[in-house]
Amino acid sequence: MAHPGDVSALAGLIDTGELRAGDIVAFIGKTEGNGGVNDFTRGYFTQSLMALLARHTGEPAEALAARIPCVLSGGTEGVLSPHFVVFARCGDAVRSTSASGAAAEPVDTVNGSLAIGTAFTEPLPAEAVGRWAQVESVAAAVRAAMKDAGLTDPRDIEFVQVKCPCITSARVQDAVARGQTVVTTDANRSMALSRAAGAFGIALALGELPESAGDADLLSDFAVACNRASVSSGVEVTCNEVIVLGNSKQWTGPLQIAHAPMRDALDLPAVGAALDRLGIAARPQVAEADRGRIAAVLVKCEPDRRGQIRGARHTMLDDTDINAQRHIRGAVGALVAGVMGDGRLFVSGGAEHQGPDGGGLVAVIAAGRA
Amino acid sequence: MAHPGDVSALAGLIDTGELRAGDIVAFIGKTEGNGGVNDFTRGYFTQSLMALLARHTGEPAEALAARIPCVLSGGTEGVLSPHFVVFARCGDAVRSTSASGAAAEPVDTVNGSLAIGTAFTEPLPAEAVGRWAQVESVAAAVRAAMKDAGLTDPRDIEFVQVKCPCITSARVQDAVARGQTVVTTDANRSMALSRAAGAFGIALALGELPESAGDADLLSDFAVACNRASVSSGVEVTCNEVIVLGNSKQWTGPLQIAHAPMRDALDLPAVGAALDRLGIAARPQVAEADRGRIAAVLVKCEPDRRGQIRGARHTMLDDTDINAQRHIRGAVGALVAGVMGDGRLFVSGGAEHQGPDGGGLVAVIAAGRA
Amino acid sequence: MAHPGDVSALAGLIDTGELRAGDIVAFIGKTEGNGGVNDFTRGYFTQSLMALLARHTGEPAEALAARIPCVLSGGTEGVLSPHFVVFARCGDAVRSTSASGAAAEPVDTVNGSLAIGTAFTEPLPAEAVGRWAQVESVAAAVRAAMKDAGLTDPRDIEFVQVKCPCITSARVQDAVARGQTVVTTDANRSMALSRAAGAFGIALALGELPESAGDADLLSDFAVACNRASVSSGVEVTCNEVIVLGNSKQWTGPLQIAHAPMRDALDLPAVGAALDRLGIAARPQVAEADRGRIAAVLVKCEPDRRGQIRGARHTMLDDTDINAQRHIRGAVGALVAGVMGDGRLFVSGGAEHQGPDGGGLVAVIAAGRA
Amino acid sequence: MAHPGDVSALAGLIDTGELRAGDIVAFIGKTEGNGGVNDFTRGYFTQSLMALLARHTGEPAEALAARIPCVLSGGTEGVLSPHFVVFARCGDAVRSTSASGAAAEPVDTVNGSLAIGTAFTEPLPAEAVGRWAQVESVAAAVRAAMKDAGLTDPRDIEFVQVKCPCITSARVQDAVARGQTVVTTDANRSMALSRAAGAFGIALALGELPESAGDADLLSDFAVACNRASVSSGVEVTCNEVIVLGNSKQWTGPLQIAHAPMRDALDLPAVGAALDRLGIAARPQVAEADRGRIAAVLVKCEPDRRGQIRGARHTMLDDTDINAQRHIRGAVGALVAGVMGDGRLFVSGGAEHQGPDGGGLVAVIAAGRA
Repeated sequence: MAHPGDVSALAGLIDTGELRAGDIVAFIGKTEGNGGVNDFTRGYFTQSLMALLARHTGEPAEALAARIPCVLSGGTEGVLSPHFVVFARCGDAVRSTSASGAAAEPVDTVNGSLAIGTAFTEPLPAEAVGRWAQVESVAAAVRAAMKDAGLTDPRDIEFVQVKCPCITSARVQDAVARGQTVVTTDANRSMALSRAAGAFGIALALGELPESAGDADLLSDFAVACNRASVSSGVEVTCNEVIVLGNSKQWTGPLQIAHAPMRDALDLPAVGAALDRLGIAARPQVAEADRGRIAAVLVKCEPDRRGQIRGARHTMLDDTDINAQRHIRGAVGALVAGVMGDGRLFVSGGAEHQGPDGGGLVAVIAAGRA
Repeated sequence: MAHPGDVSALAGLIDTGELRAGDIVAFIGKTEGNGGVNDFTRGYFTQSLMALLARHTGEPAEALAARIPCVLSGGTEGVLSPHFVVFARCGDAVRSTSASGAAAEPVDTVNGSLAIGTAFTEPLPAEAVGRWAQVESVAAAVRAAMKDAGLTDPRDIEFVQVKCPCITSARVQDAVARGQTVVTTDANRSMALSRAAGAFGIALALGELPESAGDADLLSDFAVACNRASVSSGVEVTCNEVIVLGNSKQWTGPLQIAHAPMRDALDLPAVGAALDRLGIAARPQVAEADRGRIAAVLVKCEPDRRGQIRGARHTMLDDTDINAQRHIRGAVGALVAGVMGDGRLFVSGGAEHQGPDGGGLVAVIAAGRA
Repeated sequence: MAHPGDVSALAGLIDTGELRAGDIVAFIGKTEGNGGVNDFTRGYFTQSLMALLARHTGEPAEALAARIPCVLSGGTEGVLSPHFVVFARCGDAVRSTSASGAAAEPVDTVNGSLAIGTAFTEPLPAEAVGRWAQVESVAAAVRAAMKDAGLTDPRDIEFVQVKCPCITSARVQDAVARGQTVVTTDANRSMALSRAAGAFGIALALGELPESAGDADLLSDFAVACNRASVSSGVEVTCNEVIVLGNSKQWTGPLQIAHAPMRDALDLPAVGAALDRLGIAARPQVAEADRGRIAAVLVKCEPDRRGQIRGARHTMLDDTDINAQRHIRGAVGALVAGVMGDGRLFVSGGAEHQGPDGGGLVAVIAAGRA
Repeated sequence: MAHPGDVSALAGLIDTGELRAGDIVAFIGKTEGNGGVNDFTRGYFTQSLMALLARHTGEPAEALAARIPCVLSGGTEGVLSPHFVVFARCGDAVRSTSASGAAAEPVDTVNGSLAIGTAFTEPLPAEAVGRWAQVESVAAAVRAAMKDAGLTDPRDIEFVQVKCPCITSARVQDAVARGQTVVTTDANRSMALSRAAGAFGIALALGELPESAGDADLLSDFAVACNRASVSSGVEVTCNEVIVLGNSKQWTGPLQIAHAPMRDALDLPAVGAALDRLGIAARPQVAEADRGRIAAVLVKCEPDRRGQIRGARHTMLDDTDINAQRHIRGAVGALVAGVMGDGRLFVSGGAEHQGPDGGGLVAVIAAGRA
């Protein structure tokens, strides 16, 4: 991935027949923009991806974009590397591959394999963003994605990725013109509220949301949190897009997924904990021999709201030059990359209500030992 | 350290008598600016520190600044925390303390203790910056600092910190007015060249510089490197300031220092290697019980010039929004902080010729086991 | 002013006797930080200024800082130049001078001369920032400053400058520890709310605030605005500092002040309108001969909240890389500098309720024709 | 233009028949990225434009991109507004239109009308960038574009726009792999050198380049300059693209073009001078009635290398947070926008050898009085 318009790696896999364009069900990736409201690398890459798939499937790009979640997080700070992960299903079984490596072959069903389901909500108007209407919209979509994956027990789910819309200046004008109010006119705050509503929606669908939770708890009661929720927000989507990932004996394939919560931005042991669940050791780094087993690493993190990490003041929240999300992605991304020995990680900031307050979560998708 | 003008922690140690102002010989710290040419948090903190010491010693601030190296690196990206380390010597022995903790008491001479020596060069005019005149100026100062520390064998030296001047627009004008040329008018490039010359100067003094090395190798032949050299550059200094740190049986005190080279920005094992030399385990993180033994952590790092880390493209060098040094400090700082469980690290970017190309080095100062 | 610690120009005026340190009553200036919460160039410069005055007056720096308003706006974007204006009063008359030029001699009282008054409020706790308590605190201080200037008719006032505190992460922690709530935990939003409350306070004191105005109108009803209000907010102040500027026949001196509202960020004619009131022509630029008459230019501006200027979309509010206030200061500063032919302007962003919505105001202090 | 993938305004003109897709010969526009090496809004918009034209002309997007210059400058700082200008030719005459307005109808040939010619060079390898090979490549292309426009007298040319490639980390690796050296590995410096070579190439073609000029004068002898040269550089092009604009009696159409040099970044009168040549008054702003006559405004500017503007220090060159080109575009863009009363300007930084040193140039395309 040489730049945000470069889909040549995926084109190569399709051209050689290693991957069928029609089998692709989702994308998760990192592009090299700033990750904020004015990050257009996500839209550029999505346009490029959909144009490629349109050429190969004959389906219009708009239709593809409306059924294939393309969750891109902008910002490859520090040692992070632009890359994307392609999720594909074939036959009655699942098949999951990274565009940067060879496609993995399905294997016999043993102890459960990676299962994937996706869903889209209706377009979410600006006045619904960051409010309960969004919570319920996301929850319904998570349930639909679980059904799509054939996952019935919420305990089998390891990771739910949601991409949510935010409120831009233009969308504010539009809502006001329709006589509506928006929860905030500050674009960055709208991204945070949208992520919070997404996390609440996931928790609701997984049966984890306290009955008492309401609108007022969004970005307020951080004891409400879901360790399997990962939510991004961006200007390029207008509805909520959902990807549910779990392990299932109904699925075949070489891959499995495991997650672990991170208690704060220095929680190095959490990374080892997620790897341990997949039988991969890091002493302290994943050995070169095992590195090829890892197909994807997914991380959520946030700059601690209280301005301190383990008692030491951090400066991320008061920095006018660098957005706090860029700071934390670069930091936690490097910490996880140090364990993996690889900078190709999905690291997304804005972990409000996603994992422990001030921390976040890490999930790893890896193949079993050969 | 609540802001770059806050010296209250040090004032407290002096007021309670835990530390004598007259014993202080050097400062190394991180302030929360951008770390670039226009980072004035370093100057602000230096002014504040020297005003405090002037009040307690009766010596003018200018005189203090001319004999006490104050090496500040701007930029507390990500999990890094603004802090400073105070180096003090008392009696015929050495005493080293962090302003944020209690002062450590000198102990019997066992296997060598932390030794410290300092030196200043004459003011370096803009036309000398980044040229051989600076290399020789630094080398002479390193030798003077070794003598000051009573360190005669270069093998006993674990870490040499140098702070060098850079070339600003104003200094260019001044040099041109005097009929001189400067090696570059680009301020950021001048900082890099100044650091390179500083590293060559340290290597020269430690007997490591190849005889064939010359001006043309600065920022060019990266095989020339010194694993114990750490050089910062900034607008607020006009001469080269040197701090030499080693272990010596001539010194007493509870502290020792150990360094390790980092082969690249993902070299997590290197951090453990430095800790191992001090008898501190990190499995993968330093245990809470051992954390109090660590008095200071010093790191140099850089964004790999070749645009890749272990084969994966990074985007630090082509980023117009965030300076590459800010990126790498945030990343490598977080990786080291993850091992330490603490964000109070000195992490300085710009590791040209300091440690392996594309990597850098880490040094730890810690007390022996009680 | 070579850097934010450089007070040599003022020191020179004091040393030559052109200006008595004891006559100084206020400073307004631009320093070269980012103008945000983490802009420490303001604190650095203030510390430097007060240390200079302390040496010359024998009064402690803390006492000076508590009686001399030092209104610094960070951010010298684009063609703007770091500089500061020194306001001094002597005898029973007033004397006003710029540190970068020679001091102007008092002249006979003709048609009114520049009048200046100052005042400080008590420290404002974080829980009062951006709320009605701040509005009333500022209004009382404006009335006190009018009294200090001997200005009784609000119509004689051309410009009121207020510097207000904001809410940082640390101050939030402090307020919470005292059982208080703050209006926002977002530092940048707190700066906006503090400016809004300051503008309401000025309007209240000048008799312009609608009786119906209340807390809910802050940052909400932008029809409430004061064309003579200029408010800055920053981390370095803890109380509201007020400077009132007007013209009065009770005062002598060569200088006069005139302001004009700017209807939007492209309101070039407004600059000419303010100059016209002082008898200075700009066709389209102030002639070189008249340039020396101008002692100070003070500008407030803001990025239009509605995302458009005269129907064309701007991108300031959705930019994650550059703070919107930095954008607008650079733009409106250049527009005004183009008319003046000089980049030494005080240009402050954040003009909420200060001048027309989406615009701001410009004021010029100039000497009469010789 | 709601975002960098939005070509709906142009699509509308084509759909209504106001503009034939096949008549389009060039684009000049501003997109809202950072304008640096990692600004992908230019590539995104180009991809979107060419996909639109491909749908309407049946010609492959790659072929269109290889014959239609698409000169985009990233960075809409301050009051600048994202927009693009479409140049179209029809019949034997010329027809020029802005996508944001209605297409202008050709009128009788009176005193000459806007003439346009375009040309592309072969792909320029990284080792040629910023060297004499690029100068000659650009000069040949300017001559080809003059021929394309039927312009034989260089005096009839008012403005030459060139878009040049730069050197990225990836291109360095590629050149090195081919055994070549590059003039610099610093991406931002390569953009400057490429612009310098482009300006020399234009001057060479227009007969203005001193015979003595050579490689060593690039970014060195700023007395070598061309008042009609405007050069951008970006990662998204691999060859030099040239647009020549002049006035000719051989052409018909309502539009004319006029340029004026700007002596520095405060040269407000220069804007009026260019307008005067087109019979448009600005007292000080273009009257609302005349604003519709202006079809395009093209500006080049730069932060003065000497660190001062009219004797006052500026801080653009020493700023680590905001790239100097972003600073100057925001400033000079606002100054010109203030005269026009409109923020839809093409303002490009990096005016090395383009107009007076430290200044730049402004050109206006406008319709005659009805």
